[in-house]
Amino acid sequence: MVRKPEPSDKFSFGLWTVGWNAVDPFGTGTRPSLEPWEYTKKLAELGAWGITFHDNDVYDFDASDEERLRRVMKVKEVADDNGLVIEMVTTNTFTHPIFKDGGLTNNDRSIRRFGLRKILRNVDLAAELGASVFVMWGGREGAEYDSSKDLNASLNRYKEGLDTVAAYIKERGYDLTIGLEPKPNEPRGDIFLPTVGHALALIAELDNGDIVGLNPEVGHEQMANLNYTHGIAQALNAGKLFHIDLNGQSGLKYDQDKVFGHGDLASAFFTVDLIENGFPGGGPTYDGPRHFDYKPSRTEGMEGVWESAAANMEMYLMLKEKAQAFRADPRTQELMELASIPESSIPTIAESESLEEFLSDQTAFEEFDAKTAGEREYHFVELYQQAMRHLIG
Amino acid sequence: MVRKPEPSDKFSFGLWTVGWNAVDPFGTGTRPSLEPWEYTKKLAELGAWGITFHDNDVYDFDASDEERLRRVMKVKEVADDNGLVIEMVTTNTFTHPIFKDGGLTNNDRSIRRFGLRKILRNVDLAAELGASVFVMWGGREGAEYDSSKDLNASLNRYKEGLDTVAAYIKERGYDLTIGLEPKPNEPRGDIFLPTVGHALALIAELDNGDIVGLNPEVGHEQMANLNYTHGIAQALNAGKLFHIDLNGQSGLKYDQDKVFGHGDLASAFFTVDLIENGFPGGGPTYDGPRHFDYKPSRTEGMEGVWESAAANMEMYLMLKEKAQAFRADPRTQELMELASIPESSIPTIAESESLEEFLSDQTAFEEFDAKTAGEREYHFVELYQQAMRHLIG
Amino acid sequence: MVRKPEPSDKFSFGLWTVGWNAVDPFGTGTRPSLEPWEYTKKLAELGAWGITFHDNDVYDFDASDEERLRRVMKVKEVADDNGLVIEMVTTNTFTHPIFKDGGLTNNDRSIRRFGLRKILRNVDLAAELGASVFVMWGGREGAEYDSSKDLNASLNRYKEGLDTVAAYIKERGYDLTIGLEPKPNEPRGDIFLPTVGHALALIAELDNGDIVGLNPEVGHEQMANLNYTHGIAQALNAGKLFHIDLNGQSGLKYDQDKVFGHGDLASAFFTVDLIENGFPGGGPTYDGPRHFDYKPSRTEGMEGVWESAAANMEMYLMLKEKAQAFRADPRTQELMELASIPESSIPTIAESESLEEFLSDQTAFEEFDAKTAGEREYHFVELYQQAMRHLIG
Amino acid sequence: MVRKPEPSDKFSFGLWTVGWNAVDPFGTGTRPSLEPWEYTKKLAELGAWGITFHDNDVYDFDASDEERLRRVMKVKEVADDNGLVIEMVTTNTFTHPIFKDGGLTNNDRSIRRFGLRKILRNVDLAAELGASVFVMWGGREGAEYDSSKDLNASLNRYKEGLDTVAAYIKERGYDLTIGLEPKPNEPRGDIFLPTVGHALALIAELDNGDIVGLNPEVGHEQMANLNYTHGIAQALNAGKLFHIDLNGQSGLKYDQDKVFGHGDLASAFFTVDLIENGFPGGGPTYDGPRHFDYKPSRTEGMEGVWESAAANMEMYLMLKEKAQAFRADPRTQELMELASIPESSIPTIAESESLEEFLSDQTAFEEFDAKTAGEREYHFVELYQQAMRHLIG
Repeated sequence: MVRKPEPSDKFSFGLWTVGWNAVDPFGTGTRPSLEPWEYTKKLAELGAWGITFHDNDVYDFDASDEERLRRVMKVKEVADDNGLVIEMVTTNTFTHPIFKDGGLTNNDRSIRRFGLRKILRNVDLAAELGASVFVMWGGREGAEYDSSKDLNASLNRYKEGLDTVAAYIKERGYDLTIGLEPKPNEPRGDIFLPTVGHALALIAELDNGDIVGLNPEVGHEQMANLNYTHGIAQALNAGKLFHIDLNGQSGLKYDQDKVFGHGDLASAFFTVDLIENGFPGGGPTYDGPRHFDYKPSRTEGMEGVWESAAANMEMYLMLKEKAQAFRADPRTQELMELASIPESSIPTIAESESLEEFLSDQTAFEEFDAKTAGEREYHFVELYQQAMRHLIG
Repeated sequence: MVRKPEPSDKFSFGLWTVGWNAVDPFGTGTRPSLEPWEYTKKLAELGAWGITFHDNDVYDFDASDEERLRRVMKVKEVADDNGLVIEMVTTNTFTHPIFKDGGLTNNDRSIRRFGLRKILRNVDLAAELGASVFVMWGGREGAEYDSSKDLNASLNRYKEGLDTVAAYIKERGYDLTIGLEPKPNEPRGDIFLPTVGHALALIAELDNGDIVGLNPEVGHEQMANLNYTHGIAQALNAGKLFHIDLNGQSGLKYDQDKVFGHGDLASAFFTVDLIENGFPGGGPTYDGPRHFDYKPSRTEGMEGVWESAAANMEMYLMLKEKAQAFRADPRTQELMELASIPESSIPTIAESESLEEFLSDQTAFEEFDAKTAGEREYHFVELYQQAMRHLIG
Repeated sequence: MVRKPEPSDKFSFGLWTVGWNAVDPFGTGTRPSLEPWEYTKKLAELGAWGITFHDNDVYDFDASDEERLRRVMKVKEVADDNGLVIEMVTTNTFTHPIFKDGGLTNNDRSIRRFGLRKILRNVDLAAELGASVFVMWGGREGAEYDSSKDLNASLNRYKEGLDTVAAYIKERGYDLTIGLEPKPNEPRGDIFLPTVGHALALIAELDNGDIVGLNPEVGHEQMANLNYTHGIAQALNAGKLFHIDLNGQSGLKYDQDKVFGHGDLASAFFTVDLIENGFPGGGPTYDGPRHFDYKPSRTEGMEGVWESAAANMEMYLMLKEKAQAFRADPRTQELMELASIPESSIPTIAESESLEEFLSDQTAFEEFDAKTAGEREYHFVELYQQAMRHLIG
Repeated sequence: MVRKPEPSDKFSFGLWTVGWNAVDPFGTGTRPSLEPWEYTKKLAELGAWGITFHDNDVYDFDASDEERLRRVMKVKEVADDNGLVIEMVTTNTFTHPIFKDGGLTNNDRSIRRFGLRKILRNVDLAAELGASVFVMWGGREGAEYDSSKDLNASLNRYKEGLDTVAAYIKERGYDLTIGLEPKPNEPRGDIFLPTVGHALALIAELDNGDIVGLNPEVGHEQMANLNYTHGIAQALNAGKLFHIDLNGQSGLKYDQDKVFGHGDLASAFFTVDLIENGFPGGGPTYDGPRHFDYKPSRTEGMEGVWESAAANMEMYLMLKEKAQAFRADPRTQELMELASIPESSIPTIAESESLEEFLSDQTAFEEFDAKTAGEREYHFVELYQQAMRHLIG
């Protein structure tokens, strides 16, 4: 049996996860909505280390300043009392009808101004509460119809918006980074910044991109038919993995937000393997929160809510144990050698080798035995099977 | 009836397109393989402006230097005689067994060295033949098994390889740019640089990224469940749309390489609309070749090969006519105004407005009527319907 | 310009379509909810011939009998006054929390009993209102977790439920058929009867399957990565196409319910071609309502609701015109001959030919020239291009 | 460590699996082609119980009768000598160019006649060799273009072909059943009988459908975005699961044919759970071969071929052990009770209950407490987590 979660595991949950009352496009809510501090307390009991929230998870869109302050402080107090870190705070720019065509990229300039102000306001809140990351999921930034957008202008507005937020953070001196959360679709037909790649590319063009990175979500990359572990690897390689959203998705369909590992199990294993063990040859690592962004299925009652919250952490810990044993096994190392994996860390052109030297190396090309090289074994299947032996053997 | 293609249309074809003899994973070839100069001649007759090829479309992997020269020169001669431009040349690093685990990212260093040398050799060829773009499709750079790669090292090798090629181009003084061609999968389970976004992101980290851009293919983005027009728009916005591969794909399945427009027709319309008419509010444009990277379906005989080649150009011209009429229609402009599309070109924060001024603008937030703004009409469906009226009405 | 819709076009709409107030998984409603009779009146004005509804589109789940009667009669009255047929009535067994694990296949027997009674009650209503089809969309019959169902028992319960409803219809002597509506997922992770095929297969095992057929929806089949026209063709071939749900979907994602033709346009063309022109060689035809089951996008206000409703009919009429011209063109017929399409209607073994005669026909096998046959032309691409010339030329 | 495979495990392999020489759409073969009897011998050594093959896995399309006999007998001899059963034999109607538009549904009648004769000839062979199932994968029966087929005629030809083969089997008195193998696409754009459902539906309309059932393949159903375990459950429920093809697929892309369990691992677990443990409440079971239809990845050399073959069996045995422990655990049974799974086996209407009695049961509807029923717990997530604890805990 796997051990209980501990604060050092850095497990955190969005309040909107356990707090989802199970309204879906074809059904009304099946669960009551508790107060945010009630979810907070319960998450602490289950072993979480931190919580996160959108502004409107805690107070209404139309709340007065007093109401806002009162409710936020109550969450903060309960978090403190229960030893929970508020590690991330974000702004909701997707629920209210005003954002139906987006916040930062809405065709309507007055709405963009409103959206940007709403975001900046909550950057202050995030900083006050001690959050280290400010996630920005632009779920409504997109389109259903190719004719409905000036795509160049929209991307320019997106960059303007992000740069303004980043500049504001710097100007105020906050110890805060921004984590963009890509998603290919839902609720819009095509969301801008659909994948980790598109978001990294946009960040590279920002003036203040140094404090802007990513918060990739398992299910979102999979909804673009992509490999999540490859996605976070590219983000790590670019020095931009600032936060992660762990959950489960079963293929190309609506955003399921299942428990982490309850979707593509083997992929979850390799994600944990990367997070916990790092790249085989070293390199950038991720040391941030293990943040769950899931939804308890609509069939679940309140007991199911807590069972599912606990299941996320249990899945992670089980996978971590297996991943550590997999990597520690000498047979694994042997197979990695047979697959020439360590060799991939050696530069193709030697450090001391000039381009002209490389071009004149006859052994590299003219005299190279391509036929024999084409027949070499990599044992990739056996290495994968070795992982499976550790995972389910 | 649509007009015949003319050189000014800049239609070009890969020799491997009409030259595909229709071997597929479950069947042997159904068509003879002609000589490359025979395809060249015929494409000129059909109205093409240019051709492109991989080294091994023209000569064998094992060809002697003499054979290589003789065959390339014969293609060049026939192209010249028929008024065809050789606008792009590329290297095949995917067919031969040696590349079964990739060229630039192969775990095996000796194969990476071989692959890089093969590429550099053909950069010379591309330059000699007057090509303006050197496409790099890393179809074998990837994995089927998450355990089989050190993903960080692989990305580093990819960057090293690309930077070496770009440095070589600069060092030799060639008037050549590199066009990366993303693809999510096939022939590998997960290809590195799966989408336009991922490739743009990698380019941003290169030392010599200034001459590296993209060659996005319609079907490839669609195999990642993404919107192709959005993809090339982001590439344009980043100043990186160096070449395009037009074809057709019917959803998430094997790479179909159908005739352009024979997959998602409406999406093809909006792609042509963007290429021909540009963004509604101006901005970067694409003026390069309209390059078709398709395959005549395996059911087709040689007559079908030429019919399908012609169909690509006819589809493009029909779509172009419709797209121009759509944009020129005053009702379209009216609907675009109603949708506030021109407004998206206006910066959210006025040029003269400081951040503090923006923050203190009560009309932007505190006094803003969010309820009314949430009820506004965009008429996005009517605008799309207007496009449909032009396309099929 | 395409002509206005007329009653003879048999266009009908679900009241829940224009009546959707645009709540989605990430946003609250953006439009007011009108009364059902208000939508009814407006649809008549737009040129619709009929309407359809779920019980709870007209009255609440908890409505009293009096309330139920009053509201239904008001819809009926307005429909009558405006010359609209109520062509289909169905029961909602998906919105209320009680159905969170399904109606007919809920693991909980008491809920199955409740669900079945709710359905039977509305069968009476459908009959009273003169509907000819009773659609059954089992959107909640399914699972997210393979462990959560006894799949054999669930399928048995599904058959029991359907057979009970069909037996009831027969016993009461209603002139009503049942139309099953397949869907692969959403709102459940895996819905039972995910495609046209699965539903046809289940019907074949019913005791009262003679009055049970299909109501296939465009987007639903496409969410299973399948060809909608192929799906309705198999339903027609089996004599089971009882009703259709026309709408638009852009690939593998959440259920978009866009306007018909605003998803895969070319596929919509071939669907209309089949419905209006029939199979090339004759055979079963569809003469029922052209029913739209779409949702006005959430970005739309009330003006957009009516524009989008009208767009469905306009799209259909434009496609119909093009499809008729395509088939009537002698060149089309010529190309169909070249493709041997008429030959597919000739039985492979002649009617007068015995199995032994066929087996001893040397020309069919031993002496058959397979090589030449393998080289024959079909001109499939040219025939498709011919369709495109009519559609967009 | 999991035990070695034994004949009682009934593991069988297609000769084309280990025999695939790794040609793919973008690459030439990376492995030598051995003789079929060499693969046979090696599979026996690895612990297989049976083999299967297509005619042209053993002899060429153009082989003389003598050559055919000689080669088949040599395979038979080696199988016998090594204690291997030839459990299934099938016919290749997809590789040769003649079948580029299909065998049974080719638009060209002379090719349909040829295809049918080729099939019947190999039915004799299957019977002679003692096979119990004759699989029919109609991989080329389909289309890329909706205009290229008379879909009704094509389905009629498909039925005619299948009925002829089934009639022939009966007439000859062979102890043989037919197993249709559905697939949604590849090598055709849209294959007829794309899923388990479509094939079951067609079988229901055959005259000789009693000896026609299914051979569902894991990856094929997943390529239609469907749940494989649900698919074989419906086939079992219909009494039509005649054979199975186990392999691995990672989502919606080209047909990967990975090792069983190397795709969607959790789904593989529940497939084994169903095959080995049956439905929770009893019902139809599968007792046929555990047949692997996979391909050793192209990166693998001959060592990798055998490692991957062994991995299929090892995966199955590991999953079987876990599935048996999962079901045997009293906590599992307890959770299944809490989820009301056993209750799904109880008919909704009692056997003794008449329709009128059911209709007048006030407790079932009028007096039923829908609110409370809507709040009930199912603990579906906890039950799934229980499965995960057994699988990876």
